[in-house]
Amino acid sequence: MEIKHILEAQQFNRDWLENELFPDTEKMREVADSGGSNLLKGRRVITFFYEPSTRTRASFEIATKLLGGDVIFSTENAKEFSSAARGESIEDTVRVLCGFGPHAIVLRSDEEGMAKRAADYSSVPIINAGDGTGQHPTQALLDIYTIKKELGEVDGIEIAMVGDLARGRTVRSLSYLLGKFSGVKIYFVSPEVARMRDDIKDYLRKHNVEFTESHDLREVASKVDVVYQTRTQKERGNLLERYENIPGFYIVNKEVLGLMKERSIVMHPLPRNSEISPEVDPDPRAAYFRQAQNGLYVHMALLHYVTSS
Amino acid sequence: MEIKHILEAQQFNRDWLENELFPDTEKMREVADSGGSNLLKGRRVITFFYEPSTRTRASFEIATKLLGGDVIFSTENAKEFSSAARGESIEDTVRVLCGFGPHAIVLRSDEEGMAKRAADYSSVPIINAGDGTGQHPTQALLDIYTIKKELGEVDGIEIAMVGDLARGRTVRSLSYLLGKFSGVKIYFVSPEVARMRDDIKDYLRKHNVEFTESHDLREVASKVDVVYQTRTQKERGNLLERYENIPGFYIVNKEVLGLMKERSIVMHPLPRNSEISPEVDPDPRAAYFRQAQNGLYVHMALLHYVTSS
Amino acid sequence: MEIKHILEAQQFNRDWLENELFPDTEKMREVADSGGSNLLKGRRVITFFYEPSTRTRASFEIATKLLGGDVIFSTENAKEFSSAARGESIEDTVRVLCGFGPHAIVLRSDEEGMAKRAADYSSVPIINAGDGTGQHPTQALLDIYTIKKELGEVDGIEIAMVGDLARGRTVRSLSYLLGKFSGVKIYFVSPEVARMRDDIKDYLRKHNVEFTESHDLREVASKVDVVYQTRTQKERGNLLERYENIPGFYIVNKEVLGLMKERSIVMHPLPRNSEISPEVDPDPRAAYFRQAQNGLYVHMALLHYVTSS
Repeated sequence: MEIKHILEAQQFNRDWLENELFPDTEKMREVADSGGSNLLKGRRVITFFYEPSTRTRASFEIATKLLGGDVIFSTENAKEFSSAARGESIEDTVRVLCGFGPHAIVLRSDEEGMAKRAADYSSVPIINAGDGTGQHPTQALLDIYTIKKELGEVDGIEIAMVGDLARGRTVRSLSYLLGKFSGVKIYFVSPEVARMRDDIKDYLRKHNVEFTESHDLREVASKVDVVYQTRTQKERGNLLERYENIPGFYIVNKEVLGLMKERSIVMHPLPRNSEISPEVDPDPRAAYFRQAQNGLYVHMALLHYVTSS
Repeated sequence: MEIKHILEAQQFNRDWLENELFPDTEKMREVADSGGSNLLKGRRVITFFYEPSTRTRASFEIATKLLGGDVIFSTENAKEFSSAARGESIEDTVRVLCGFGPHAIVLRSDEEGMAKRAADYSSVPIINAGDGTGQHPTQALLDIYTIKKELGEVDGIEIAMVGDLARGRTVRSLSYLLGKFSGVKIYFVSPEVARMRDDIKDYLRKHNVEFTESHDLREVASKVDVVYQTRTQKERGNLLERYENIPGFYIVNKEVLGLMKERSIVMHPLPRNSEISPEVDPDPRAAYFRQAQNGLYVHMALLHYVTSS
Repeated sequence: MEIKHILEAQQFNRDWLENELFPDTEKMREVADSGGSNLLKGRRVITFFYEPSTRTRASFEIATKLLGGDVIFSTENAKEFSSAARGESIEDTVRVLCGFGPHAIVLRSDEEGMAKRAADYSSVPIINAGDGTGQHPTQALLDIYTIKKELGEVDGIEIAMVGDLARGRTVRSLSYLLGKFSGVKIYFVSPEVARMRDDIKDYLRKHNVEFTESHDLREVASKVDVVYQTRTQKERGNLLERYENIPGFYIVNKEVLGLMKERSIVMHPLPRNSEISPEVDPDPRAAYFRQAQNGLYVHMALLHYVTSS
């Protein structure tokens, strides 16, 4: 039987998203609300994070436990602390971990392509919880679920993606998923130095997704159903620190909120810095905390998906 | 219903200490001795530590498990490793964590007032397991329980608090609790540069707690029921390293033990450096390891308190 | 009743290895294959690592859980993060941990002799999971089990130990165990600066274990049943970086494999760097991943051994 890895957003088709992921995630919401279940009973999960991500690791570990599974091993900074620091390759690490009999490995790495390399040597499902500047498919899945949940439909939405689009893996992965739907229009809003890379733009053209590029969020705010704001990624070498001297506007604040439609949402993968002003939080259109919570339900659905036959 | 946070020592009154905390802690001692219970069954606890504290984290996590609860997520250096490092505020972090459905969050921070800020945004109980130079209420509760357990009464005790009193949060929190009892006398013993701060002294005057200040432990050792020694806090910027050139005496050794009453105790929040000589360890008055163990029982009682209605 | 610590390889005799460890480990292999057991039900294990070792910690924690026990506390870099960083001695740490009621403490330290010092103050079994350049008895036990499992017998084997033998604790501990068997011959293969220390050589002479020293693996490869390769220990101050300018050959590659007997094995405690070429991996004689997996079963057997009466 084929091992069900989750490696990149492209691997999923619309049918799976709409007829498996979305309804399964709804069920998981109910499971969590009712205090848990035994769907993963006897299933052993390893969360192996080369770089820290409190939110993602917490969500996957709590998802496992809510489903009655066991997190049999967890490490949050393998790059600095573990065998990796002593020069071990991901290929060796994954072979050793598989020898310990897990049913799934949630892997966060700091190197593009590492999840795929791990999967090539793994005898159990690998869930890519982010690899460097590459992909973050589980984030994209929770993002697309959030759009569906909040707006009712993905088809036909108009979405502004704002910030460091060159390096932001969440917007890259989400773009791949939006390409599965019809009538979507994307407004890329970023400084010149941080524009969306060509590979994604080529993909969107091929899938008939309309997009434009600009550098003032205020110009597009009134048109969109979703403002997807991203973080100024200090730890990835911050292109955006140069923003201050570059013309453009990339912050969600009351002014932007005033321009937005009544039925629209502000999303953010979190953590945020100053790119969304706290004054936005009380507005019902501020969807980012609901989005983070949806992550828990999506992670539950994914863990169930990869460990079931 | 009101959420039962544990934020600062002042929030507890004498009645609660004597009629809830002390008897509940005794019950928890029996629970631990008998191998555990199911009082927290189905309850999910997050231990979120911005700065490391092996002892405190171990105690809370083991307390949760002995009560049949689940530690669904644990991190020991969130400041360095997590979203916090990427600039996330405690207000955002706590809202995301609450979305994951815990029943309590044990929070250790490195910033005075952080626990209160967390509580303002939390939908579940926050247990302040120490915040910077501010408070350490759970330590104070295990300290006051230890005094009661070891000496039979808190009323009327005379206690020497020794060391860096300006920065030591344990002595600050304990002073607040001692203000709830009558006839207590405190001897503050510290170098001039590390004297107890005025806010605590004002509080003690208001609550009729007698206190004196001096800088030689040997002068007060024979008078007291408790010597509460504190650690030279290297990691907080060590005022006490200047001790060597400052007149005074702040170490518990055999000489001090020789001066102390037969029925008295030496306490210390641990970890210790050289401020208690190892030659003191075999003496039955050395109460610090029993005190650490009491911490487990007190933490069990507190977890049960905040998660029960 | 005596506490069953596991502190050094010398403590075990041949009878225990052959009649307890080896058969118990076989049973544990079956337990793991069948998804776990309840042999450690209600037993609480602490994994306390002063220095990181992902593999060893993962293996002990998964072993505990497969046996139905609880890992009640885990820390992977106590040296940097915990009370130890604030100057606490292992004697204090172990007394506090014992107060929390564990049934065993798995201790990894970075200081020779630390496990013994911990055991002197511990009221529960200490399992030494490596202490500095001293010993690594649990690695040696899984190594000797692997030799027995792979080759059928330990008596009479010829083994090449290759690399930094002066600092490699695994080869030191394994040498002690090999001294319990008869007819064993060891070929130490290392650069002049990294030769096996005299204490081990004296021990081997006393136990009639024949050994030679050389500095070219190709000269001995055809004679041995086991090539035990060790890692170039960068983090311990790397003598071996000087290899490049020193005559000798210490790498396992296809050339070496071509010289080796058909029924022989290549072992390595892992993680490896470049001292075993990846081209060796597909060869059935490459036993190192099976060896790592055996570690899980041996750790299960050891946890059961120390916690049962």
